[in-house]
Amino acid sequence: MNKVVLAVSLAFAPVAFAAEYTLPVNADTVHWGYFSKNLTPNLYIESGDTVTVETLTHHANDDASLMVDGDPGAESVFFWDENSKGVDRRGAGPVDHPRGTGGGFGVHILTGPIYVAGAEKGDVIEIQILDVVPRPSASNKHVTYGSNAAAAWGFHYSTLTDPREVITIYKIEKGFAEAAFNYRWTPQTDPYGVVHEQIDYPGVPVDPETVTKDYSVLDGVRIPLRPHFGTIGVAPDYDDNDTLVDSVPPSIFGGNIDNWRIGKGNILYLPVQVSGALLSVGDPHSSQGDSEFCGTAIETSLTGKFKIVLHKNVPLEFPLLETPDSFVVMGFSFKDYLNELADPQSTIYSESSIDKSMKNAYLNTRDFMMSQYGLTEDEAISLATVAVDFGITQVVDGNWGSHSVIRKCLFDGSCKTKD
Amino acid sequence: MNKVVLAVSLAFAPVAFAAEYTLPVNADTVHWGYFSKNLTPNLYIESGDTVTVETLTHHANDDASLMVDGDPGAESVFFWDENSKGVDRRGAGPVDHPRGTGGGFGVHILTGPIYVAGAEKGDVIEIQILDVVPRPSASNKHVTYGSNAAAAWGFHYSTLTDPREVITIYKIEKGFAEAAFNYRWTPQTDPYGVVHEQIDYPGVPVDPETVTKDYSVLDGVRIPLRPHFGTIGVAPDYDDNDTLVDSVPPSIFGGNIDNWRIGKGNILYLPVQVSGALLSVGDPHSSQGDSEFCGTAIETSLTGKFKIVLHKNVPLEFPLLETPDSFVVMGFSFKDYLNELADPQSTIYSESSIDKSMKNAYLNTRDFMMSQYGLTEDEAISLATVAVDFGITQVVDGNWGSHSVIRKCLFDGSCKTKD
Repeated sequence: MNKVVLAVSLAFAPVAFAAEYTLPVNADTVHWGYFSKNLTPNLYIESGDTVTVETLTHHANDDASLMVDGDPGAESVFFWDENSKGVDRRGAGPVDHPRGTGGGFGVHILTGPIYVAGAEKGDVIEIQILDVVPRPSASNKHVTYGSNAAAAWGFHYSTLTDPREVITIYKIEKGFAEAAFNYRWTPQTDPYGVVHEQIDYPGVPVDPETVTKDYSVLDGVRIPLRPHFGTIGVAPDYDDNDTLVDSVPPSIFGGNIDNWRIGKGNILYLPVQVSGALLSVGDPHSSQGDSEFCGTAIETSLTGKFKIVLHKNVPLEFPLLETPDSFVVMGFSFKDYLNELADPQSTIYSESSIDKSMKNAYLNTRDFMMSQYGLTEDEAISLATVAVDFGITQVVDGNWGSHSVIRKCLFDGSCKTKD
Repeated sequence: MNKVVLAVSLAFAPVAFAAEYTLPVNADTVHWGYFSKNLTPNLYIESGDTVTVETLTHHANDDASLMVDGDPGAESVFFWDENSKGVDRRGAGPVDHPRGTGGGFGVHILTGPIYVAGAEKGDVIEIQILDVVPRPSASNKHVTYGSNAAAAWGFHYSTLTDPREVITIYKIEKGFAEAAFNYRWTPQTDPYGVVHEQIDYPGVPVDPETVTKDYSVLDGVRIPLRPHFGTIGVAPDYDDNDTLVDSVPPSIFGGNIDNWRIGKGNILYLPVQVSGALLSVGDPHSSQGDSEFCGTAIETSLTGKFKIVLHKNVPLEFPLLETPDSFVVMGFSFKDYLNELADPQSTIYSESSIDKSMKNAYLNTRDFMMSQYGLTEDEAISLATVAVDFGITQVVDGNWGSHSVIRKCLFDGSCKTKD
């Protein structure tokens, strides 16, 4: 990888002529559960433009009264009666899947795609996250609600002596989240009459009459927010023209990275895969820990403001996050699983491991430290092992992730003894 | 696990009658490369006593002129001429191993063991780390030196296109480490005439005439210190009376945990395995990142001051660290590998994975949050996934480790929005 001069990239933004756009969320501006290079963009921008993007959590129907009802954007997306749905396809699977169109193979409501003029494969788009704000509940404009699902696909699930899926609804207010209530998932019958014994299709409305709410859950516990977008991605360059890409596994194109550091004040760099980049944003979270082991974060509708800057011909091969103090290097079990595996969209769910994602995170970290800071391989190895922390990003998204956090102050002598 | 009231444990310390001891490091006060319940203690203490413990890095002979020569304690331990060694056994292997006594199956110089009066299996000892200071170099009393070995057992090693082992010597001064020079390992002939093609036996003196030093390494890079003890452990209760236990794999008894948070101001809790606990300390590090992937930290001789408090009948089943702000829960691929695996001391080196250590870290975290904070399993699962970070402790110590960091402020509403 050649040297990427990322830290000074803002100098390239043509500020004087930058436009500002807003992309509201509704049934016409989202694709649900998949990426595709064949989608028609719903916004065209130039490098340097700013876009405010509304996003919805796909878990809003875990309590529609708090997260859907009275919110026109959410009502548009989640609409579902016995005859039709606001967004019919949910996932990359077949139209006639018994669980519903798309089969729930991919779950995230993604706002976009946004076409970035001049972006081509081999370029990088810089996504400056200027602001992230919670989407108010129509039931009470001063608060926001989110849902955490401890689901069957969670890392913990096989250890349960009494297997169950549990929804915990959190109330978000004044920078903190507090649990409001929880309930165990019960079989839910969707408006088409399909019974969902488990959480197997996104946006199934939970009938409050069928669940038992416990309002005493996590009494006194108060969680500082880490508002971020679980999923920010460009369209993958996946060869089969008719194949949609499941939104769950992250990869070289970004996507469902689920790193809670992808929030306000930070910059995400993504390698462009197709002409125009086709950027989409979704899977908003108000808080998550490293590992996201139970299957989800506090899934919470958010609105983000992003400035997009195009960098031509940058050989970046992984999603990279820049914070004011550090670079966060992402690694996955498979760096580009769609082009590495046979039958990738099935295989990825059985072939991942943290060992593999740690190996990729190590290699990416080594390469980044060599290209960005001019270190030799021996220097990068020694410095990264004595001064760089590796964490477990997520173990629930098919293509499991690890990451490293590289402090910038190491390189200019500016670290303090407590850094 | 019953509720462990750890946060208030200091109230139990019999302060009025506490004694203070010093355990210097020399050939008579160390065991090198192994734990054993059959060792004779070199100090007897009561609960509440304070002990200053000198420790030496087993990498000091990577440059004896900086880390051994002129230091009587280090010279005593590292002494080796054609007729004898200051400490003959290095490792848990056979006496007649071709590489040397003990075979290097276990590498850490451990000061101790310390007998804690009244400690029995089923109890917990609380180890308050009151102070940690670098051991001055005899060559210059104002600085300390440390060694980082990027070794054949490193996680990175299989990715090298030009396989080699690299030693980087760091200078430690005023709260920071800076690389002084590095060199590639060359075959070293020990005083008994055995040639060590690789770093395969601890304490082999490196002949400076045989290596090429690069003094330009990591020019301008300055690393804040994280002084800590890689290895703090009690004697394992391992059934075979004649079998020593390799010091490399950590386990329920603590040992080579290699978590850089085990430093000043924090408290380590270890489950006692045998009468008297038989506490030993070593493997001192001046800095390390989460994962320690190249095989070692900045291995640096340190002196620690510890206050030891005994807690009777506490069913703790993993090493637990308490900091002023958090609890750090340790997990390993195998929580008690010596009693879980057949031929454990060999098998452990091929059966570990981060997936397994993450699973153990999750289970320990769940159990701890339930017992310490009275949460239900559903509450612990939701809170840990949305607010607790899981990291990769180490991937090089046989029994690989993961850990979680649980912020105390979550539970009493005292978190700030940036915590």
